Amino acid sequence: MTQLSQAAEGITAPEMEAVAKAEGLNPEFVREGVARGTIVITKNTKHDFDNICGIGAGLRTKINANIGTSGDFCDLDYELKKLAMARQCGADTVMDLSTGGDLRHIRREIIGQAGIPVGTVPIYQVMVELAEQQKPFSAMEPNHLFEVIEQHAADGVDFVTVHCGVTQGALDQLRRQKRVMDIVSRGGAFLAEWILVNKKENPLYEQFDRLIEIAFKYDLTLSLGDGLRPGCLADATDRAQIEELITLGQLAKQAHAAGVQVIVEGPGHVPLNDIAENVKIQKKLCNGAPFYVLGPLVTDIAPGYDHITSAIGGAIAAAAGADYLCYVTPAEHLRLPTIEDVREGVIAARIAGHAADIAKGVKGAELPDLEMARHRRVRDWKRQIELALDPERAEQLHDASKSTMDDVCTMCGRFCSMKMLDKKLSQEKT
Amino acid sequence: MTQLSQAAEGITAPEMEAVAKAEGLNPEFVREGVARGTIVITKNTKHDFDNICGIGAGLRTKINANIGTSGDFCDLDYELKKLAMARQCGADTVMDLSTGGDLRHIRREIIGQAGIPVGTVPIYQVMVELAEQQKPFSAMEPNHLFEVIEQHAADGVDFVTVHCGVTQGALDQLRRQKRVMDIVSRGGAFLAEWILVNKKENPLYEQFDRLIEIAFKYDLTLSLGDGLRPGCLADATDRAQIEELITLGQLAKQAHAAGVQVIVEGPGHVPLNDIAENVKIQKKLCNGAPFYVLGPLVTDIAPGYDHITSAIGGAIAAAAGADYLCYVTPAEHLRLPTIEDVREGVIAARIAGHAADIAKGVKGAELPDLEMARHRRVRDWKRQIELALDPERAEQLHDASKSTMDDVCTMCGRFCSMKMLDKKLSQEKT
Repeated sequence: MTQLSQAAEGITAPEMEAVAKAEGLNPEFVREGVARGTIVITKNTKHDFDNICGIGAGLRTKINANIGTSGDFCDLDYELKKLAMARQCGADTVMDLSTGGDLRHIRREIIGQAGIPVGTVPIYQVMVELAEQQKPFSAMEPNHLFEVIEQHAADGVDFVTVHCGVTQGALDQLRRQKRVMDIVSRGGAFLAEWILVNKKENPLYEQFDRLIEIAFKYDLTLSLGDGLRPGCLADATDRAQIEELITLGQLAKQAHAAGVQVIVEGPGHVPLNDIAENVKIQKKLCNGAPFYVLGPLVTDIAPGYDHITSAIGGAIAAAAGADYLCYVTPAEHLRLPTIEDVREGVIAARIAGHAADIAKGVKGAELPDLEMARHRRVRDWKRQIELALDPERAEQLHDASKSTMDDVCTMCGRFCSMKMLDKKLSQEKT
Repeated sequence: MTQLSQAAEGITAPEMEAVAKAEGLNPEFVREGVARGTIVITKNTKHDFDNICGIGAGLRTKINANIGTSGDFCDLDYELKKLAMARQCGADTVMDLSTGGDLRHIRREIIGQAGIPVGTVPIYQVMVELAEQQKPFSAMEPNHLFEVIEQHAADGVDFVTVHCGVTQGALDQLRRQKRVMDIVSRGGAFLAEWILVNKKENPLYEQFDRLIEIAFKYDLTLSLGDGLRPGCLADATDRAQIEELITLGQLAKQAHAAGVQVIVEGPGHVPLNDIAENVKIQKKLCNGAPFYVLGPLVTDIAPGYDHITSAIGGAIAAAAGADYLCYVTPAEHLRLPTIEDVREGVIAARIAGHAADIAKGVKGAELPDLEMARHRRVRDWKRQIELALDPERAEQLHDASKSTMDDVCTMCGRFCSMKMLDKKLSQEKT
């Protein structure tokens, strides 16, 4: 049985209790959310790990880190170090997006060492296998795709991105839309080519029942991918994007009715003032299914700093109700991320998620900030560093420039406002 | 005559024309904004520089970079390198916040080399001079403070932060509020001590007319400082903060009536969901005077990454109407910033300001993004790097990891979605 089918029957599974405990909520709240489809617990029945992760309404915003090889840069040990860094910095899940090397071996190593939920995009493996056979993408047999998805599920993958909404209808909208950047999703672009050359419907849409069957068997969460997500501000919230979202909403309902857990993926590049509306329309069209945003990036002109452009968009999206943020690293649009890029990406996304959790009233979200403020007030540097989201970085910066006085920093030195007013004014509010 | 007194008489000064040209607006719009006090042009009549800067409603959001020595770290050459970095990264103004070394010499060197408006916080010099004489802050003579302000104006400083709103009444509110962090503004803490020990009113409030007189003489813009800004989320938008803001609004009106240009400074540390309201209430209480925000930081727990916490808050604030963002660097709360910290801080603030300009409909703000998207679509790496907010950083990241194929990056290699769909789908919209 899946988490959803158990919840629907009123059963509180141990995973629901684990999520409730981690969030400081009662298990019934989690069970009801899973039953309604507003919360998912991404855990393949074949994957054992300790950090059970709930994603959805009323829970802390979760962070995903993408790792994985590419054809140009393929080193499993290096990817495992990225995994370790992602975990050290507090990522809740990882996705293995490898497209270079022995994909199954890499996947299994990552699943074995993760300790947190692992997601994949199975169609990447299909693309790589076709390329190895020097076949065009349009030569893909639908069976090949479903077999790869089942292989991922059997390997213990907890959630998969499946671009079910890239339909002939959505591509018609896209063509009439005349976008600046067309399709920026690799899976979306691959399926679009397949559909256009073969003049057939997307098999992930046409045979969605088959996908549901595989997912149910392993309690594999389906992350309905947005193959037509906007790749630049000018393409945001257009008819092609919303057409695809309507389809994803319909499929989410179908999966939910069959006891399969579903997440819906969202943009992309979106102007700041359109982000909240994007989240609200997703929640409406998809019956409140958890929303997994890829950014959104609030400008296109900051390559090298897209962890910041997406932290701005992610914070606003999560405050408006998005549940799950895919990190973006400084390497986005430029190269495969390094280990340090992973650090920057995870922390930026955690800042966004945490700021949003305070804004949306997630239980206890503001307490770490209060704790930090109290220790900052009394200039307790040791505790300030321990309480930092990234203690290693905070310590490194602080230690690189030490004041001649122990209890202040080199920014203000003896003119530290905290020190000047020590004990002079109000007592802390109680 | 000041810019404001000229505008009030219907005179379009050359500075107004320069601002209009830089913003692609007509000079009458700028003149009317200056006359109403919703736009300021920060330029001391004694300071000649090319990059005339307008700040306010309808204009591009402006970015300030703080530089300056401290007692612990005092090296003029290093500060001048920070100035050069701030300018290279696109800062619109700088503030010299030096508290170490020969303050007047440092200030004059920075003013001489800036090429952009320079701001200061004159009370810092008073603090340093008292400390040098081993006198307590409460020993300050009000005349000393006004003389230092006039010295700054005579040196060519374009705008000064003056904490006029730290009044006996505001301190009463503060004491009754029982804050976690009391006062985190150095100038605010200094004045609070002076007021409490001497049991007298803040001379900057009591003798505001004297301040106006100095400001008018040099067309020195008064930046009304928020000495009681919240230093942590728990203290945000409390009675003490708003009490001070009411006073600043009243003083802004008084200055405006006397032909003196005014900016109002704002928080600080503020939960994400309270930022827009903070901006709206400032605009209401201060008759639309330009709003200069110090952040706001949306969480307290990310020392080492406060350029990101403030980019999130700054973007939301500017989208809601804030006009001027003070950068925050990764060094905030930890140390005096390095040259690289200055780079990170300016770029993060520029991202925030630019994203907000698109959101608030500043004329032409979206065009650089469209240009970037077009060149990203055709994988023109050279132009993508040229169009980046920080071309040096973008090039460095891209070059550190080159693909074996010329026209793609190592993120996707041959599975680049742009390449897969080259010319297959829609033409760009026109």
